[in-house]
Amino acid sequence: MRKSYLLTPGPTSIPENISALFARPIIHHRTPAFQSLFEDVRQGLKYLYQTKHEVLVLTTTGTGAMEAAVTNLFQKGQKVITINGGKFGERWTKLAKTFDLNPIELALPAGEAIEPSALEDCVRSHPDARAILFQASETSTGVVMPTKEICRIAAQAGMLSVCDAITACGVFDLPMDDWGIDVLITGSQKALMLPPGLATIALSEKAWKFNEQADLPRFYFDLAKERKSQAKNQTSWTPAISIIQGLQESLRMIREEGLHNVFKRHDLLARATRNAAKALHLELLSKNAPSNAVTAVLVPSSIQDGKQIPKIMRDKYGVTIAGGQDELEGKIIRLSHFGYCDRFDITTGISALELVLHELGHPFELGQGLAAVLRTFADSSKS
Amino acid sequence: MRKSYLLTPGPTSIPENISALFARPIIHHRTPAFQSLFEDVRQGLKYLYQTKHEVLVLTTTGTGAMEAAVTNLFQKGQKVITINGGKFGERWTKLAKTFDLNPIELALPAGEAIEPSALEDCVRSHPDARAILFQASETSTGVVMPTKEICRIAAQAGMLSVCDAITACGVFDLPMDDWGIDVLITGSQKALMLPPGLATIALSEKAWKFNEQADLPRFYFDLAKERKSQAKNQTSWTPAISIIQGLQESLRMIREEGLHNVFKRHDLLARATRNAAKALHLELLSKNAPSNAVTAVLVPSSIQDGKQIPKIMRDKYGVTIAGGQDELEGKIIRLSHFGYCDRFDITTGISALELVLHELGHPFELGQGLAAVLRTFADSSKS
Repeated sequence: MRKSYLLTPGPTSIPENISALFARPIIHHRTPAFQSLFEDVRQGLKYLYQTKHEVLVLTTTGTGAMEAAVTNLFQKGQKVITINGGKFGERWTKLAKTFDLNPIELALPAGEAIEPSALEDCVRSHPDARAILFQASETSTGVVMPTKEICRIAAQAGMLSVCDAITACGVFDLPMDDWGIDVLITGSQKALMLPPGLATIALSEKAWKFNEQADLPRFYFDLAKERKSQAKNQTSWTPAISIIQGLQESLRMIREEGLHNVFKRHDLLARATRNAAKALHLELLSKNAPSNAVTAVLVPSSIQDGKQIPKIMRDKYGVTIAGGQDELEGKIIRLSHFGYCDRFDITTGISALELVLHELGHPFELGQGLAAVLRTFADSSKS
Repeated sequence: MRKSYLLTPGPTSIPENISALFARPIIHHRTPAFQSLFEDVRQGLKYLYQTKHEVLVLTTTGTGAMEAAVTNLFQKGQKVITINGGKFGERWTKLAKTFDLNPIELALPAGEAIEPSALEDCVRSHPDARAILFQASETSTGVVMPTKEICRIAAQAGMLSVCDAITACGVFDLPMDDWGIDVLITGSQKALMLPPGLATIALSEKAWKFNEQADLPRFYFDLAKERKSQAKNQTSWTPAISIIQGLQESLRMIREEGLHNVFKRHDLLARATRNAAKALHLELLSKNAPSNAVTAVLVPSSIQDGKQIPKIMRDKYGVTIAGGQDELEGKIIRLSHFGYCDRFDITTGISALELVLHELGHPFELGQGLAAVLRTFADSSKS
């Protein structure tokens, strides 16, 4: 017997009570039953986003919602600042180029967060930029960006703050209205603990003003049209009904646990993972700004072929984690600890990691990673 | 006790064995397990499309795939011919306008199919048009369009035939390669018997040539990028994994029944429904070209408020059918008979319809619709 464990930054595990819902017959979306469900989902999403604004549900994955942000806010040729801290930051730049914007890219070394002072310099050099596009958590490097600071800088410059929070929303605190996040995006297969297929996006009043002037072509991702439809508990196009049924339940679970308890849980699991890495003589990719969503660990010099670590973990032990992408392939491994994840997912993940590191000849004393995990948990129980 | 029956043209009922699959834990998409599943799905889709071309899977609904067809094939300002036989034909025109094409619209009265000679006239008047965009089955009016003829006319004029087969593919015969359909689109919540959230699209060699020259902006719906990814049994963006797992099973079921047996079943169920309508003194919206996907019936003059028919069927009897959309609201009802649908779904639908027509005072003899259904079935068993 070998069970399967999913410790990847999306898709994440789906709670058994949500999976069970997907076995029910489908309902039609142009019915009072769907409208009542969708009303509840809309309220739940406002709680998750900590916003009074409408959170729109799109049948797409995160990249589709990123495209929607670009095509619904800007005019051809406008300048935008993109923060490229990895694969997903780079995606903002690509999107901006594709749709005839003029992106000014702030490229960061892998593992580093943006320095607010560097962003301020860039904003001063480009006062005509209309927005700052960034990730709250850059999934490819396990880095948390200073969202509150970025939004403050954007607001002072009259720019929009456009935040890809696909692996951040519901992981750590991102109060949309308090921090003045103008656009906030997430996806279903992350902290919402659902299959991929839905993305959500909310716009501030300021962003809706930009939307009125936007002239880039959009049809499937027309947010003004969606806003009108969703105010009536409908969607412009046939939605991913079954995933929306799951969303109602995952939002209920998040409300039941309490959003700030969810954040505390993620913080604990992330600290335990980081402490385990240290105890196993492993270095984090991010020295100063590790994300509570995913821990990116450098492959130690003792191991030649870094791709073997996730491969053996998966094939021999049934524990799926992520490796590095693009230029980080084979150089890092990434353990995710958000969504439907508790203490014993961390002990499972670190157990499998220790066994594989041991097998590959990395020098450390077996059990030291797990001991660090348990110490972190024990300390947190005391306080 | 009141059971629920879904006789709408999307979403359609999901087979219980497929629903049960959705209760399983999710798998990660960057794994050999997913790649093996996706390889099987790709083969199954080629069988469904009757094509040797790659059928691409997109995480979106039908409208997203229609947008993909527009943005991946054309250049700004190019002329295209759109056949508008209803709400979905009109969508081609709107899409073309949104993306700066120059659509020449052939608008048809509700319930009518395009006359090949009228299309030939239009093609002669607009030899510079690059494509004919149309529906194989116009769902809003229950009309089947002459796809084979349209493709022949397009091919002779050097134009692309771009076929929205969202409620046609897997319903009746549309052999992509034999008929020279250049672009063929469908959605998961139709004959594929799945929840909404996936759309599929295949391009002929000629269409891929157009793609090389296309200059409209696209990112999430970049088909050339998808073709590269899917050849390696991957997708460019995180796909709707769970629905793809269901797709493997629905394609298996279609292969097991045999595509042409599926078509025969739909033909029988559609004929039974049309015969029942006649026996109930109801008129079809389409006199000459009723679709085997959905039967659109005019609300009889004996009934003042046509919207009451689907409403009472749903609220009192648990049988969900569709009404008319936009200017057809309250004027027609639509009974769907494709996907996971057998003889007794038709007797159920007609039973509920008879009860409601009777309640609303429409003059007919109770049971005559059902008798016509049974006669249709009995006759088909003989032959």
